[in-house]
Amino acid sequence: MQEPDLELDPWCIREEGIDLDRLAWGESIFALSNGHLGLRGNFEEGEPFGEPGTYLSGVHERRPLPYAEAGYGFPEAGQTVINVTNGKIIRLLVDDEPFDVRYGSLLSHVRKLDLRTGLLERRVEWRSPAGQDVLITTTRLVSLTQRAIAAIRYEVEPVGDPARIVVQSELIVNEPQHEPRAADPRVAAVLRAPLTPEEHSCSDGRAVLVHRARRSGLRVAAGMDHLVESPAPTTSETECRPDLARHTVSTRLEPGQRLTMVKLLGYGWSSVRSTPAVRDQVVAALTAARASTWDGLVEEQREFLGSYWNCAEVTIEGDPEVQVGVRYGMFQVLQASARSEGQAIAAKGLTGTGYDGHSFWDSEAFVVPLLSHTYPPAARHALRWRHSTLPAARERAHALRLGGASFPWRTIAGEECSGYWPAGTAAFHVNAAVAAALVHHVEVTGDEEAEAELGVELLVETARLWRSLGHHAPDGCFHIDGVTGPDEYSAIVDDNVYTNLMAQLNLHAAAAVARRHPERAEQMGVTDDEIEGWIRAADTMYVAYDDRLGVHSQDMGFTQHERWDFEATPPECYPLFRSFPYFDLYRKQVAKQADLVLAMERRPELFDLEQKARNFEYYEALTVRDSSLSASSQAVVAAELGHLDLAWEYLAETALIDLRDLHENASDGLHIASSAGAWMALTRGIGGMKVTDGALSFAPRLPSRVDRVEFGVVHRGSHVRVLVERERSTYRLESGDPIEIRHHGEPLALGDDPVDRPNPPAPQFAAPRQPKGREPRRTDHWFGDRSG
Amino acid sequence: MQEPDLELDPWCIREEGIDLDRLAWGESIFALSNGHLGLRGNFEEGEPFGEPGTYLSGVHERRPLPYAEAGYGFPEAGQTVINVTNGKIIRLLVDDEPFDVRYGSLLSHVRKLDLRTGLLERRVEWRSPAGQDVLITTTRLVSLTQRAIAAIRYEVEPVGDPARIVVQSELIVNEPQHEPRAADPRVAAVLRAPLTPEEHSCSDGRAVLVHRARRSGLRVAAGMDHLVESPAPTTSETECRPDLARHTVSTRLEPGQRLTMVKLLGYGWSSVRSTPAVRDQVVAALTAARASTWDGLVEEQREFLGSYWNCAEVTIEGDPEVQVGVRYGMFQVLQASARSEGQAIAAKGLTGTGYDGHSFWDSEAFVVPLLSHTYPPAARHALRWRHSTLPAARERAHALRLGGASFPWRTIAGEECSGYWPAGTAAFHVNAAVAAALVHHVEVTGDEEAEAELGVELLVETARLWRSLGHHAPDGCFHIDGVTGPDEYSAIVDDNVYTNLMAQLNLHAAAAVARRHPERAEQMGVTDDEIEGWIRAADTMYVAYDDRLGVHSQDMGFTQHERWDFEATPPECYPLFRSFPYFDLYRKQVAKQADLVLAMERRPELFDLEQKARNFEYYEALTVRDSSLSASSQAVVAAELGHLDLAWEYLAETALIDLRDLHENASDGLHIASSAGAWMALTRGIGGMKVTDGALSFAPRLPSRVDRVEFGVVHRGSHVRVLVERERSTYRLESGDPIEIRHHGEPLALGDDPVDRPNPPAPQFAAPRQPKGREPRRTDHWFGDRSG
Repeated sequence: MQEPDLELDPWCIREEGIDLDRLAWGESIFALSNGHLGLRGNFEEGEPFGEPGTYLSGVHERRPLPYAEAGYGFPEAGQTVINVTNGKIIRLLVDDEPFDVRYGSLLSHVRKLDLRTGLLERRVEWRSPAGQDVLITTTRLVSLTQRAIAAIRYEVEPVGDPARIVVQSELIVNEPQHEPRAADPRVAAVLRAPLTPEEHSCSDGRAVLVHRARRSGLRVAAGMDHLVESPAPTTSETECRPDLARHTVSTRLEPGQRLTMVKLLGYGWSSVRSTPAVRDQVVAALTAARASTWDGLVEEQREFLGSYWNCAEVTIEGDPEVQVGVRYGMFQVLQASARSEGQAIAAKGLTGTGYDGHSFWDSEAFVVPLLSHTYPPAARHALRWRHSTLPAARERAHALRLGGASFPWRTIAGEECSGYWPAGTAAFHVNAAVAAALVHHVEVTGDEEAEAELGVELLVETARLWRSLGHHAPDGCFHIDGVTGPDEYSAIVDDNVYTNLMAQLNLHAAAAVARRHPERAEQMGVTDDEIEGWIRAADTMYVAYDDRLGVHSQDMGFTQHERWDFEATPPECYPLFRSFPYFDLYRKQVAKQADLVLAMERRPELFDLEQKARNFEYYEALTVRDSSLSASSQAVVAAELGHLDLAWEYLAETALIDLRDLHENASDGLHIASSAGAWMALTRGIGGMKVTDGALSFAPRLPSRVDRVEFGVVHRGSHVRVLVERERSTYRLESGDPIEIRHHGEPLALGDDPVDRPNPPAPQFAAPRQPKGREPRRTDHWFGDRSG
Repeated sequence: MQEPDLELDPWCIREEGIDLDRLAWGESIFALSNGHLGLRGNFEEGEPFGEPGTYLSGVHERRPLPYAEAGYGFPEAGQTVINVTNGKIIRLLVDDEPFDVRYGSLLSHVRKLDLRTGLLERRVEWRSPAGQDVLITTTRLVSLTQRAIAAIRYEVEPVGDPARIVVQSELIVNEPQHEPRAADPRVAAVLRAPLTPEEHSCSDGRAVLVHRARRSGLRVAAGMDHLVESPAPTTSETECRPDLARHTVSTRLEPGQRLTMVKLLGYGWSSVRSTPAVRDQVVAALTAARASTWDGLVEEQREFLGSYWNCAEVTIEGDPEVQVGVRYGMFQVLQASARSEGQAIAAKGLTGTGYDGHSFWDSEAFVVPLLSHTYPPAARHALRWRHSTLPAARERAHALRLGGASFPWRTIAGEECSGYWPAGTAAFHVNAAVAAALVHHVEVTGDEEAEAELGVELLVETARLWRSLGHHAPDGCFHIDGVTGPDEYSAIVDDNVYTNLMAQLNLHAAAAVARRHPERAEQMGVTDDEIEGWIRAADTMYVAYDDRLGVHSQDMGFTQHERWDFEATPPECYPLFRSFPYFDLYRKQVAKQADLVLAMERRPELFDLEQKARNFEYYEALTVRDSSLSASSQAVVAAELGHLDLAWEYLAETALIDLRDLHENASDGLHIASSAGAWMALTRGIGGMKVTDGALSFAPRLPSRVDRVEFGVVHRGSHVRVLVERERSTYRLESGDPIEIRHHGEPLALGDDPVDRPNPPAPQFAAPRQPKGREPRRTDHWFGDRSG
């Protein structure tokens, strides 16, 4: 077979052929999920695999975190996502020869993911070693409407000659995995056989297995049910053991006859409920799914996605690759979050075990804002999850001898799981990201209930954290010392500008919310003095500036450090943290990702355009984008400064990060925040969208490469679509109340009729330069030859 | 028995009674060593024990260093000292009842360590459960003249009634140990049964066991031989197995009759030599020791120590506790180093497993300078060991992408073993300590051979490190960013003053030595340009200063940080690193130990007296002395500033740190560098001794508590004794060539006749204040109730 490449139709990701060395990448790309249940794109026949993966959001195992030298407050227990019961398995025997793409002849192999239907289709023509041809087609979905349910329609048909066909549909627990690659901190710890059996039962094509994770104690039930159609007589049997359930159907088919098996999968888990309760919940879900029928499940999926795209659809003319990349990213964000009710949105969603399945600040900083604009229920789920972890965050703050609550740098269930504190505990900016996401969500949705239910506590507790973390120095300013900002190539610094400005936002927002909800605030012991303290800290917040250079200093002293020697750094040394010690990265001017630029993106009102231009030029030359969280912010600021073609290339990099495997680790799971970042780059960058004090404004301009960009957002119930063309932009109210928006500062009342306005000329600033070899890329040749 | 306390005679440490809860402390206090072989003060009968310990300098096991999140350049293998074959065991059966202080009645128990003879004596009167009284006396030595040899004279005598006596003398391998206390980073990792047997043999009272450490592959041979005298007939047998050798002597004694067994122990090890070679080396050592006889070994010991004290004796009138404390410290430094040929001087010497048996910067910063003045051969051994690790240090620098050589923060064999890089790798000042010790050694001894053999390489390679580590910034200054200075409560800082000034010394010294040894330098590829580069870096070295406060800033930004809330910190929260996270300690003004004050102590010529006074007052108020390496430097600077009583109390704290267990961890081994620090505080503080460009000067002044202090140093072969009295100081040349010294700046030619001069009045500065509750202490009640 030829090496596969993805064909990118406007709405489809299509792969022709198989590359056995890149299976894991394809499994991530074709992963299906609904935010509760995730299935990697593993083959139904189970093997070969890159990394088998079936995940339930929140289901993890605990493991001790080891330290060569431990210290006070180092987290002792980690949490790692586990590969739960695999229900994807449908093995096929053709005249007693097992179907395996590595044997016989693979005549054709096509996979296709349709972003409008949410269906993953696979079509295989295979010739067995004995020469029997078969046609296999499978269609898979993870239901966005029935969160416990996934389904696979499996069809097999002999070609040329009649054949005996045996189909074995299974549930497998604790399946073997490959050894992980050499120590890469982004790869998950491997837990062998994490599940212990509790109960198994089966009858007539239906089976349920209940297991429990040894240390975390989480209970997982997985069930399957089958609907079989065959033109020829079949025999079937269902059997089960503690770690295996199997439903076998055998028949003999004439050429052109087709055996169809619809496999329904149901999953449930709980940290508190009993074995029978979790088991029965799965059986009930299966029963409901069976009642829906396959066609019903497909139709529900199509409707759900149709409604989503109706609101959020993005169209781009002139760059088809980016067109589908942005849509794919939005689809993945939706898959990661739609039904995540009560659980975190992980950095990789439910597509792989990268980063141990943890959730980071990027959930609130990149993913939630997109959801607030396009699918608010998921944004609210995410914020509610974060709110639910307040007890752990309060405890962490207490252990750190700080006030309020300190959210973890990385976690599944809420407890800090970062084993390297200079990049974990010290990265307090996660707390401001939570606060900012909440504020933004309420501004965008007008959801006052969310503010009351979640906002007061989240904002007050994080404000308390900042107040206790910083101090008023003799210079009269409020300083926050010894923290780590977004740029992970600096750490334990004083007055990181991004952190300080986001803390400022957090403090002001807490004061405002406490005054809007005096009763709730009083219950929390908030006093006027405390509020005054927050305001005073915010008003006197120190912002580091280098007068000599005329730019903001990412943190105190940053601009005085030695500059990284980019000229002497060969391409194979990227990402730098794999080739250089942290101590060297920390003490030099090199940014893993946007940090000061992110500050300008998130607090744009605090920097005038000239200052932004100077800052952007300075930090562009230092930013290597070894993090996937960088390009989108760079795109937004570049666009505002009139570097529209550069902005577009950053947007393209973000949109194609996984489809083109630009970071060479999509095999571990997709970059959900970066996927969201593509949409952010489009709306905030190309569209110039801002939300300020509840008001929506745009400042669109097109880069030279594309002719037309259109996107839609919902703002306070009003669905606004924005069409950006070369000379003009057009705004249309699709539904909801009339709304006032701004176009490049000009207020526009948007009612029944579309309004269009000319796009003013872009500002002209000298083109910034990136570090050698670190210009934005949209191909996968960034890191040199893939053969390594 | 009553709880023991130490009686401190001028030359003896005497303990009466036993406290079973404090056994490990006593074992450290009564440890004997010669720098090659160390025996903890375990009871001969083996049990009870606090921590059994027999150590060979350099003998270690490798172990993997685990990380919750690994990073590039993190050391992967650690080294941990191991408890080798225990030859101290001599069990006693009295009428078939084993002697054990926990059973029967302990009528009296006295141990005494004599600093002039190096002998540890023990005298026990014991009544067996059956009522038989015996008198046991043992005398133990670890030979300072025959480095492979230790010896125990064991005597037992029935009292009142005749008794059957059986004495079992053993070699035991892989003996059991207690579990370590709850995670304290200063406690060693426990390695269970690290030794695997290679050979065992015995005959006629002699036995040898050869073992090998599993991972490090180091081969260890331990042998014993016996000389038995008995007034009554004895029967004896010798047996051995892979992990045990035993020589048993039995007899029946009348009251007053005494069985005497002299047990000779021989130890050898090698990383390269064969089993027979190492075995035979031990047998040869035993044969030589047997020929010396017990009395001969005792006499050699007395002579060796006599010669040492003749040179180095310190006398103090008015503070007997400190008198013996200083002597005890000097004795322990000598024990740790005298015969360490080719191996490191560990932080705990060979007295315990604290800090995994690692050597740190304190060896060169505190221990070697004392040895250069009092026993230069040991200083040269230590420097030669460091030089021998240059290959590993070059490799480490290369891995860190730095020039020259980077010595490890902690190690046994030369490789970096620090598993927490912000306090390990980043503490580059260890390299300057090595350079400064070398420079000081050559200045004090005039040992030009050492300079040529060791100095050129050590200085050039460390200068190269500094040159590559720092950079010339636009301000024209040379900056060293992102390092950790001596104060472990700050980390990853820019321009730590101590580090910068010591690097400056290092760079200048390298330039000078390269010019004095042009051929050697050329072989190392040193060019004129490179030398110019060192000088330019040194000459433009940045020194952080806070104009607002009028004090030097320990590092960039330090004085602008929030001040630690000492008032709110209760005594039980010390040491702070056990109660607060590093992130909190790092970002606030609190010093674990002298840092800026150490800079003033080590580079006194760079600060005028007024500046020193301002700096001292400022940092005194921030320094909590959670490190044992602090008080001595504080004493020196306090004395120079006329705070003589404060200086004395710091000196006392240093001198009594282990005898009074002030840090409550002497059980893990003695604080060798702090022991050396007492002498440094005395000579540099009270004596005002300095060595500048090869010239020796003094500036003595007495604190009110003592009436008279006398000490001796050797400088370039001239043995000078300094007597400090209230009003005057007297200098006497004991041996060697006439020498010019200075007294408070006045040049004095010192020849045959003593010279005396008045002590000028001390400067008057306001008394500094320490953090609440952290004044210098000389009792063990510093950390509150010991019961915890």
